[in-house]
Formats: sequence, structure tokens, C-alpha cells
Amino acid sequence: MAGSTYGKLFTVTTWGESHGPAIGVVIDGCPAGLPLTEENIQQFLDRRKPGQSRFTTARSEADQAEILSGVFGGRTTGTPISVIVRNQDQRSRDYGKIKDCYRPGHADYTFDAKYGIRDYRGGGRTSGRETIGRVAAGAVASRLLKRLGIHVTAYTKAIGSISVPESEYDYDSINQNPLYMPNNEYAGKAAAYLESCVKNQDSSGGIIECIIDGMPAGIGEPVFDKLDACLAKAVMSIGAVKGVEIGDGFEAARMTGSADNDEFCMKKGTVCKKSNHSGGTLGGLSDGSRIVLRAAVKPTPSISREQKTVDIHGKETSISITGRHDPVIVPRAVVVAESMAAITVADLLLANMGAKMEYLEKIYKE
Amino acid sequence: MAGSTYGKLFTVTTWGESHGPAIGVVIDGCPAGLPLTEENIQQFLDRRKPGQSRFTTARSEADQAEILSGVFGGRTTGTPISVIVRNQDQRSRDYGKIKDCYRPGHADYTFDAKYGIRDYRGGGRTSGRETIGRVAAGAVASRLLKRLGIHVTAYTKAIGSISVPESEYDYDSINQNPLYMPNNEYAGKAAAYLESCVKNQDSSGGIIECIIDGMPAGIGEPVFDKLDACLAKAVMSIGAVKGVEIGDGFEAARMTGSADNDEFCMKKGTVCKKSNHSGGTLGGLSDGSRIVLRAAVKPTPSISREQKTVDIHGKETSISITGRHDPVIVPRAVVVAESMAAITVADLLLANMGAKMEYLEKIYKE
Amino acid sequence: MAGSTYGKLFTVTTWGESHGPAIGVVIDGCPAGLPLTEENIQQFLDRRKPGQSRFTTARSEADQAEILSGVFGGRTTGTPISVIVRNQDQRSRDYGKIKDCYRPGHADYTFDAKYGIRDYRGGGRTSGRETIGRVAAGAVASRLLKRLGIHVTAYTKAIGSISVPESEYDYDSINQNPLYMPNNEYAGKAAAYLESCVKNQDSSGGIIECIIDGMPAGIGEPVFDKLDACLAKAVMSIGAVKGVEIGDGFEAARMTGSADNDEFCMKKGTVCKKSNHSGGTLGGLSDGSRIVLRAAVKPTPSISREQKTVDIHGKETSISITGRHDPVIVPRAVVVAESMAAITVADLLLANMGAKMEYLEKIYKE
Amino acid sequence: MAGSTYGKLFTVTTWGESHGPAIGVVIDGCPAGLPLTEENIQQFLDRRKPGQSRFTTARSEADQAEILSGVFGGRTTGTPISVIVRNQDQRSRDYGKIKDCYRPGHADYTFDAKYGIRDYRGGGRTSGRETIGRVAAGAVASRLLKRLGIHVTAYTKAIGSISVPESEYDYDSINQNPLYMPNNEYAGKAAAYLESCVKNQDSSGGIIECIIDGMPAGIGEPVFDKLDACLAKAVMSIGAVKGVEIGDGFEAARMTGSADNDEFCMKKGTVCKKSNHSGGTLGGLSDGSRIVLRAAVKPTPSISREQKTVDIHGKETSISITGRHDPVIVPRAVVVAESMAAITVADLLLANMGAKMEYLEKIYKE
Repeated sequence: MAGSTYGKLFTVTTWGESHGPAIGVVIDGCPAGLPLTEENIQQFLDRRKPGQSRFTTARSEADQAEILSGVFGGRTTGTPISVIVRNQDQRSRDYGKIKDCYRPGHADYTFDAKYGIRDYRGGGRTSGRETIGRVAAGAVASRLLKRLGIHVTAYTKAIGSISVPESEYDYDSINQNPLYMPNNEYAGKAAAYLESCVKNQDSSGGIIECIIDGMPAGIGEPVFDKLDACLAKAVMSIGAVKGVEIGDGFEAARMTGSADNDEFCMKKGTVCKKSNHSGGTLGGLSDGSRIVLRAAVKPTPSISREQKTVDIHGKETSISITGRHDPVIVPRAVVVAESMAAITVADLLLANMGAKMEYLEKIYKE
Repeated sequence: MAGSTYGKLFTVTTWGESHGPAIGVVIDGCPAGLPLTEENIQQFLDRRKPGQSRFTTARSEADQAEILSGVFGGRTTGTPISVIVRNQDQRSRDYGKIKDCYRPGHADYTFDAKYGIRDYRGGGRTSGRETIGRVAAGAVASRLLKRLGIHVTAYTKAIGSISVPESEYDYDSINQNPLYMPNNEYAGKAAAYLESCVKNQDSSGGIIECIIDGMPAGIGEPVFDKLDACLAKAVMSIGAVKGVEIGDGFEAARMTGSADNDEFCMKKGTVCKKSNHSGGTLGGLSDGSRIVLRAAVKPTPSISREQKTVDIHGKETSISITGRHDPVIVPRAVVVAESMAAITVADLLLANMGAKMEYLEKIYKE
Repeated sequence: MAGSTYGKLFTVTTWGESHGPAIGVVIDGCPAGLPLTEENIQQFLDRRKPGQSRFTTARSEADQAEILSGVFGGRTTGTPISVIVRNQDQRSRDYGKIKDCYRPGHADYTFDAKYGIRDYRGGGRTSGRETIGRVAAGAVASRLLKRLGIHVTAYTKAIGSISVPESEYDYDSINQNPLYMPNNEYAGKAAAYLESCVKNQDSSGGIIECIIDGMPAGIGEPVFDKLDACLAKAVMSIGAVKGVEIGDGFEAARMTGSADNDEFCMKKGTVCKKSNHSGGTLGGLSDGSRIVLRAAVKPTPSISREQKTVDIHGKETSISITGRHDPVIVPRAVVVAESMAAITVADLLLANMGAKMEYLEKIYKE
Repeated sequence: MAGSTYGKLFTVTTWGESHGPAIGVVIDGCPAGLPLTEENIQQFLDRRKPGQSRFTTARSEADQAEILSGVFGGRTTGTPISVIVRNQDQRSRDYGKIKDCYRPGHADYTFDAKYGIRDYRGGGRTSGRETIGRVAAGAVASRLLKRLGIHVTAYTKAIGSISVPESEYDYDSINQNPLYMPNNEYAGKAAAYLESCVKNQDSSGGIIECIIDGMPAGIGEPVFDKLDACLAKAVMSIGAVKGVEIGDGFEAARMTGSADNDEFCMKKGTVCKKSNHSGGTLGGLSDGSRIVLRAAVKPTPSISREQKTVDIHGKETSISITGRHDPVIVPRAVVVAESMAAITVADLLLANMGAKMEYLEKIYKE
């Protein structure tokens, strides 16, 4: 695969550049018979749409999803689902500096190094708009999961050093503040911090947390396609993510085995764990507990402060990124992380259907 | 793929259980003409072999690699390289508790949940011995990379809370202490800490760091197969790894853009970065700087302390894991992480050969 | 992969139904720097467009290709190329019989068996319009190949029992007759035969031949991804193709080794073959000779003659397919076969770039 | 994938050269809980073993299969099944001519062109012994299919121009004659013809037919991974196969739609076809009828008659292949074709488990 297709059975192929005519995704391998409308997808896209708060770019985009195939009579047909979003804000402009200079923290230089050619308009393929396709696919995957009782939820755990401790989580708050934090008070503090970043012509990093409830035990493939390994790749493939951890994560490196191990017990006739340091996986397979994943997101690299750089001719120069940019990537990336997690789990659920003869007999012999 | 194959072009398929007759790997897609001997592979295997220090299991295994195919006259032929290692320490024993109980922190329960059957002898497929195949393949990948001027090095950054600060790194020390730490003094402290863990019938986590030097810019595929995303999956697929980060990693979440961005400059006619907060990737492609990756490893779950658990019949019970176990996984996992990184880079180097027409013309028209 | 993606490095993902809003393709892995315009794609699409002769359906479709991504300044950028073709002829109509009955020779029944739901309008995903995406991708692959001196050409070898013998081939004729036969006289006879088929409310099968000139030796992967095996799949995946052969093909089954073997000789310092019974491959790798491939295409299953069948409720009934249908599939499938062959060769050319260390050194060390 | 792995879910990775220490296969993705012994595999291997009749090479090989992993307590565990066969007949010999010359009809030249290096001993990777791995995997796949009521059978339809007409098939005869023909009388004639070939220092081609009974309808993936396309690749990837057809195959090219279409009817409440011109697939999906596939196999290229060729230094010379070689490939390839068909069907059965939500609900909600 050439890099723009994700998944083995529930496959997602995204395409499109920031300032091309459109951006889109082809979702192949979605089982037939899943109820699906454009509204289902739109709800997800609206969560990453620009212009929602004073911390997101003012670019005016409706980001209206159109389903072009794979759905008939309100249900998926098993054939590829093509979703397209027209780019509207393509007014011609002067790309001068972006065209000729390598922006620090961006992929301008590495794209030139790889391909020798680069669509510089708005970042081209490396623009955050690339995630539109992921989110549309995530909407489909999430619907599929919900019908099986699996729920994926992502939110902003931290912005800069303002981090909501787990003990103060209030999941209902997530959609009550523009930063998607599970605590409105912390969201207020984070907003104030972001205001100061903007004033300083600067930006902030943060942490996304994603939880998955209702996972049956045994999902994931041992060895290379472990559930946590796949989730790590899924989330790390989102631009600006620089780290990922599951359960106790990096904290586990400082712990002892007696503290980190989760003891087993029985609850209502089912094997359960007394704690969840593992974050819901053992040996790369889901263990029936909640999956808990965190992703570290670097600060927005586009800042108006002047930075030193070089141009495409190898001359040293400096650049300050004009125009309005989000001072933080995290809030709009929340739904992207949720989407990538949902796609990954859907893919592994399908892979798991061949785990034992009993399943094959259930489908082919009954 | 069913989970035991890794890579798209440089593919690695591992097989084997801890107490089966043998364990091995098939490496397909290695370019022809690479000098390769069994000694090259043995050197890598010896780094993960048990019995090397008082902190590694006393299981007596020669772990002798045999190349069964793909090499002729001392060079790879382009056909699959099959490497096999016979398991020697298979004396019959009483697996009683392990057979019937789910060990906390292990995959016994999840394997039963997935497959309904499990080779319980020594952990079967979930044993650390599964990594033998990875390391043999890593040895091959490393040789390939070296011929292109690319060097991968991994070491123990931290054990428990004893962490070597970057300013005190001495790379020559790595092979001078049994913990593979880049500072012998810290290694001494870590050894003392591990002794105390053993006394407490407990174990410790730690952190592996992996660096890659000599990477050309532009390696990795944008969007889903980003270099950092692939590395994250590679490393997270190693049992016991609970987190992975690149460059500033989780620290970046607390930083501002002006501090996290690496400014560009020119050095000897080449585009360079003044700093390396990014850890060597921009937009998922290598940027020509050193790749810096860290992995958090959980404590050894096998501890002799008594733990509560349930048996396969759903009855609550308790277990204490007898026999000698490493009180820390990190030192023996160092070469595994290095191997997975090398395999990943080799695979992406091959994928990158189709990046531009210029390359095709170089090979097919000259 | 879920079946709508083809290729490993040069990947083609098609989507779309006959009577949905559009049909399209995403081409990922095309090297950067290839000159490409919408006209290049249109030329290929025009060769399969309906309404070109009295033997092709009168459905009025402009089949106008629009490139939505992956091309900038007239060149490919290395990112996915999305091509879309709007369906125009979607007037509402009565699908009565097609909706409720299983047409003999069509996939109505098998789609229902597989998915339990089916877009019956115009055959939905099983319509010949699905090949639009293949042909658009074939146009791109062909351009890539041409720049490396490789030329793919397909034509109609036979319709019914009117078959052009190789000794009477005139390649210039191919584009001079609506049946794409390499001999205008035979094309005349075939046309007369097709007229008689139409009068009899019947249809005809035929044979497509595809040749590839300029192939370097050594392309293809031994064992499972042999060049001929990949071409066989490529061509057999075109609806209505029931057989495929390379070189002497089925005739070879009746031959002796002394007659079938091609002796080697030297020509201008290069290893050559004195004959080409093998059709250009040895051991699954190209041998430097012309690739010669033939595909057997069944007669158009849609005939106006009344046929017995059953409806979706399991009741026996009969059906006669009204409306105008091509009495033969071959002429419009010629460009599809050519496209699939071109895509396959492009993909294997990319795969071959990792065949030897010498190639890697050429790209990464020079 | 680098060419030595086949299948997407039920994956088969073969390795090994003719005169290396061993040859083998790794089967990954086999569902857990399938009863499997070494004897099951041995039975299949014995069908392709040399030395069974006067028409097969006298090379003395026990071809004894050893299962090294993936089976525990007589059942598959869901982890990779590694099967190894030691090469016994490796006495050192003079490879002189084979080493330096390109044998007509063999892959010596193309391997050199691709890799620049070649294990010339006994043909190395291009030897027929490569199929040992395929057959071992086919044994596993066949067992899986049998438990679901699916039966794959292959036999020799024709040798040279001696072809058994369908009307004279007697399936019981297949194992009663060394040529695996479904009619002992024809087998006698074919044996006489082969004797004459040997006398003439020549060899013969032939045709293998493979039938699959008990296929549920709807198996295969539309578009690129059609059941017939996958079977075509599977069979065409066997060395020496030059053509493949399904159902009426090439005959369909000469037919009319009214003759080629299979009308539907009801039988015991199930949708059936009155005839089976299609060979069991419609639109690339199984239609519930018997799958009927034929493969054309070229004559053994190794003949003792003198042939012109060139050596590796580009000098024209001549060669006569000494030593005993089978005068026909077909009988020993029968089990290989059967194996490849079984593997392909097993793989597509697994892929089909995600076809509809109903299946997911059956497994994850019941």
C-alpha cells in the first residue's frame, strides 16, 4: 500500500489537498446492512469544522459531506462508500513565502525532499484538512461499533500544563465547552492560557484521551497486529501527535510489577480485573476492561512570531506565518483520534471473526 | 494478514511457541546481494539470550540460529530467508497452576477468550521467546541499513526511576554493563534497585531509547504510513511496551510552538535543523536529523509474590509465579526494539524507491 | 483489503454504482513528477464510452473525467490521484423486473446471497460502468510505462468464431474499425455476425489479446506474484472474462517440450529467444520478449430473448431484458484489459525496485 | 508483500530451495480448533512425492513433514503453523552446465536478470520442490473446508492430445492410475504416449481440472478479488501453468448468450441453475453450483535432446539436460492445483465473514 490506505478489512483510503477542488475518502469493507445517512457523517465532520470558537481558524468551510456510493435505501450495501467534501475557500491568494520557504515544524521541506514537487497551497496534502476523510470514515466505523455495543469517546485531557485529573472528570462537560474538556472549570483555565499564547504570538500543545467501552475480550491479533500496537499507529499517524500510551503508559516504566499487575476476579459470572493499569489490553488483545489511550499533541507549528528558516534555493531567511491559525491543535483533533480508534477497532473486529472454527461453523453451517 | 507478518516489502513472518520444537522467522523481500552469515544473526540473538546476567532468566538456551534458505555463497539471493532456532530447554514439567490459572499481567485469559485453546507451556506464543524471530530479522535489516550508511542503536534509558539524563550519556558504556545503559554509574544504581525488587518478590519497569543516524530525508509515507506511526506500531507490538514517543514526545504537549519548532539553517550546503525537538520527523517523513524514539516498558508481570486471580473454570484463587524470572524486561528488550526499528526503516526505504519518476528512470532507463 | 483495491504499490481503489451520482477511482502510489492532464485520462475513457457504434449501448454518457487531487502544475505529486466521473443518465425509470428477478448470467442472485441487499438500478456495482475507474487508472499507468519505454496494446482477436490469425494482423487497423480488430476485413465479417446475433435477440462472446512491448527482463515476483499470475488475476477480474492464457496458452498443453521451449541466442549483445512460445515470461518473470496474453470473454448476458428464472421471493418466472444492450462485450472491454495490464506492470515495476542492493545503492548512495 | 506470501487472511508463506537444507511453509490465520496432525499433511505431500511411477523423477526424497508450531493437543491454536520438510538428496555433484548456462524453458536467465545472483543447484527456488510448502498448506486448508462441507478435487483431464471427455469421467479412477486421470483406459493411452515422448527425448503438456463442491453462494469479493480472478492467480502461479479457464472458458468466446447463460430454477426451496456454463461463479461470486476450473500445463522444459542456448557470459552454446526428469508435469501438479484452490477458497471464506452486519451480530451479540 502506498500510504493513503488504512486497515486490512475495513479499509479507508483518503485523498485530497487543502486547496484542490475537493477532499474525500473511500471506505471499503463495511458490512452490508448498516443504516447510514449523510447526517451521520456530517455530525462527525461538524466536530472538526473550522470556525467553531475563537481558538479555531476562521476559514469559512461548510465541510458538507456527500455520499456518492455504497449506500442504497439508507443502508450500506457492502460496496465501497465514497464520501466527498468540496473545498469552498479557495480564493486565489499570494502564497509567496509558503511557496518558497520551509516553515519550521511543517512538512514543506520533507515533502520536497521526498517528491521533488509539492502543492504548497495551504499545505496541500499535509494540511489538517486531510483528516476530513478520516473523520467521515470514523463516523461510519462508530455506527458499526455502536450496533455491537462498543462506544468510543475522545476528549481533551490537557492543554499545556492544564490537565484534568481523572478524579475530576465529568464526561457530560465534554460537549459543553469549545475545548472538549471533561471539566468546564479546567476548560476555562485552558482558554485563558490559550489567550495568553495568542498574545505572545505563540501556540500550545496538549493531550487527547480516548476511551473505548464495551469491547469484547480477545480483540486484536497477537504479535505484530496487537490492539495497542494498531491503536498506536492509528493515533500516531495523525499529524502533530508525538507520543501515545495505553493504560498507565509511561508511568508504568517507573512502577513495580505488584503495583502494575491487575488482579483477576469474578463478577456476575465473568472474568474481570480489579484494576485497569493495563488500559484494557493484555498480550495485545482486549481484556474486557475499558481501553484507555492517550496521545501527546505538539503545539501548532504555525505561529506569527518570526522564525529563522531557509528557502527552497538553500538561502537562509526568516518567516512569520501570517493569517489566523488555531493556537492549539488538540480540540479539533479530538474527533480525529476518536475516528482513528473506531476505524482500528472495526478493522480488528472483522479480523477476529476468523479466530476460531466455532465462528466459521456458526456462519457457514447453521 | 493474520498478524504474524510485519512489513509490506521487507516482510517478516515469525512463528513458534516457547516450548515447541523450534522458533523461527521467514524474511521475504530482502534485496539480493547482501553479504549475510549465520554469525551476523547470532550476534544479535546473543544480545537477547537468557542467562547473561543475574537479572536474566537462568533458562539454558543456546539460541543457535540456522539459516535454511535465501542465502547462497554468502550473499542473499532475493528469495525468502528462513531462520530457525531450536528450543532446547523443553524438559517435561508440571505446568499445573499456569495451565489452569490466568496469571495477572499475562495474556493467558485473553488468548483463551480469543481462541478457546492455548498452549500454556511457558506462555506458548506469548512467551518472550517469540521475539527471537524479530531479532533475527532485525540483524538482517541492520546489515542492509549499514550498507546505506544508516545506523540504529537502542539502549536502556531508565529502570524504575533511575533515568540517565541525556547530558550524561556515554554511548561506549552501553555494552559495558549488563543493563545496556549509556552510563555505567547509573547502571550500578539500577542494579542495586533491581536487587531490592528481587528481595521484595517484585519487578521493575523501564524505558528504552532508540536512535537512528544517517537517515536520508523524505523516508516514510505521508498520511497513514508515517515513519513515526510505523515506528510506534513496531515498538508497541513488543510485549510489555505501554507507550512510545518521538522527539520531545509527551513533553511537547506542555510546550509552546516557539519552543517546540526546530528552525531550519544551512550546513555545508544542506538543509539542517538548529535543534531536534521533532525527533527527526516532520509530517511523518524523516527530516535528515537523528531519529529519537522512546518506549515505556511495564514491569515483568511474573512475580513470586502471591496474587489473586481466577482459574479457567471461573473460580477465584491465588497464584505465585515460581521459578526464576527477570526482575526487569528492558535490557533484553533493547535489541528487540532496535530490531523492530531497523525492520521498519528497511521496509520504508524500499517503499520510498517509488517516490519519484526520477528514481524509476535511474533504474529502468540507465 | 476488501476487494475494491488493486495493486500493492501502485494501488487502484474504485468505487461507484451505475446509477449513483458518480463513479470514480483513487490511484495511490503513482511516482511524483509524471506529467498528467485530464485529457490523458479522457482519451482512455473515450475508448470505452457507450454510443460509439451500433454495437454499443445508446446510453448517453459524456463520461467526463475530473481530476480532484494528486496533480499540481501538470505533474503528479506523489499523493493520491482522485478521478471522478459524474453519472448523467439517471432518469428515473421502472426497474420492476430487474429489481425483483435474478437475470441469468448476471450477478443479481449472488449479490443478494452475499450481502442481503443490492442496488438493482442498472446493475449497481456490477454494471460495466465499474470499469471506468480501472480505465482512468490504466491511463495513468500507461503514461508511466511509456516514459520507461514500455507499451501496452490490446485489441479484439476474435468475435464468435471469426478470429484474426496472427499472420493477418495489421496493428494500424485496430483504431480504424469500431470493433478494435487488427484487420478491417475480419472486422467487417464480425460486424455482419453481430447483426445476425441482434436479429436473433442474442449476443456473442469473443477474445481480447493484449501485448506488452519493451519490458525489461526480470519483472514479476517469483512464487505467488509471478507476472503471468498477476496478469491472469488482473484480466480475470474484469466481469465476463472466463479464461486467460499467456503465450501458447492452452495450446501448450498439447505440445511437446522440444516444440514449446524457446531456445536462447545472442542479439546485439543481449540474451534473446529465437521464438516466443512462452509469451514473454519464464518462471513468472519477464524474459525480455513481448508479453502476449489472451482473455476469453463470454457473450453479453443481457439478451432480449425470453429466459426462465426465479424472483427474489423464490418463485419461478421468466424475463426478457428490454432496452438496448451491446450484443458483444469485447470491443469496449479491450481498453479495460489494456488498463488492467498496464496497472499490473506498473505495480510490479515498483516492486522490482527492491530486487537488489545495487538498486538501493544507486538511489541512496549516489 | 514480497511475493512469497499468498492470501490475505489465511496466509501462506513458503520458503526454501531445492538443494538447501530444508523447504517449508508458515500458515498464519488458520482458525483455532481445527484437528490437525502431521499425517494429514503427509497424505497430501505423498501425492506430489517423486518416485511414484516411471513418469516421475527417481530422486529419492521421503518428503517427511514436521509441524513445528501452531498445533497443540492435536488442534490448531490460531497461531502460525510452521511446517518443515528436510531435503535429503543433496549429494554434491557437478552442476557445471546448469551453473553456467541458461536452460531453455527455465527461469535461470530471468532470475539472473532480476537478482544478479542465483542458487543454481537443482533450480534453487524455481525448482518444483517449492510447491511442497503450497501442498502442506493445501492440506490444512482442505481440512478446514471439509468441516464446512466444501470439497476440492483435482485430476488430470488431458495429457498431450489424450483428453478424457466429461461424459466418460469416473472419479473413482483418479487414484487408481499413476496419472490421476478420471478414466483408467485413457490413462493407459496417455502412459503409452508418454513412453514415446521419453523415447524421443521429449516431454508432454497437459490439462488439470479442479472441481469444488459444496460452495455456499456469495463467496468471493466483487471487483478485483473475484473468486474466479483469485483462483486464476492461484493456479497460474504454479510454475508451468500457461492458461486457466472457468466453466466453458475459452469455449464461451465462441458461444451466444442464449447458449451460455444458465437459467435459474428452484430446487428444494433453493435457487439453482439449470446448467453450469458459468463454472460456478456469477459476477465473481460463487453461485452455489460446482466450481469448475481448468489449467493448461506446458511440457516439462527439461529434455535430454540437445537445445541451443547461451551461457552466463553471453556466449552461444548448446545443452542437453541429463539425468532423469518427469516427461510430464501434470500428474504431480494435480495436488498442487488442488491445494492452491483450497487455500484460495479458505481465504475468501474468511473474508466473506464480514459481508453483512447480520454475521457480526451473530458472533458479537449472541
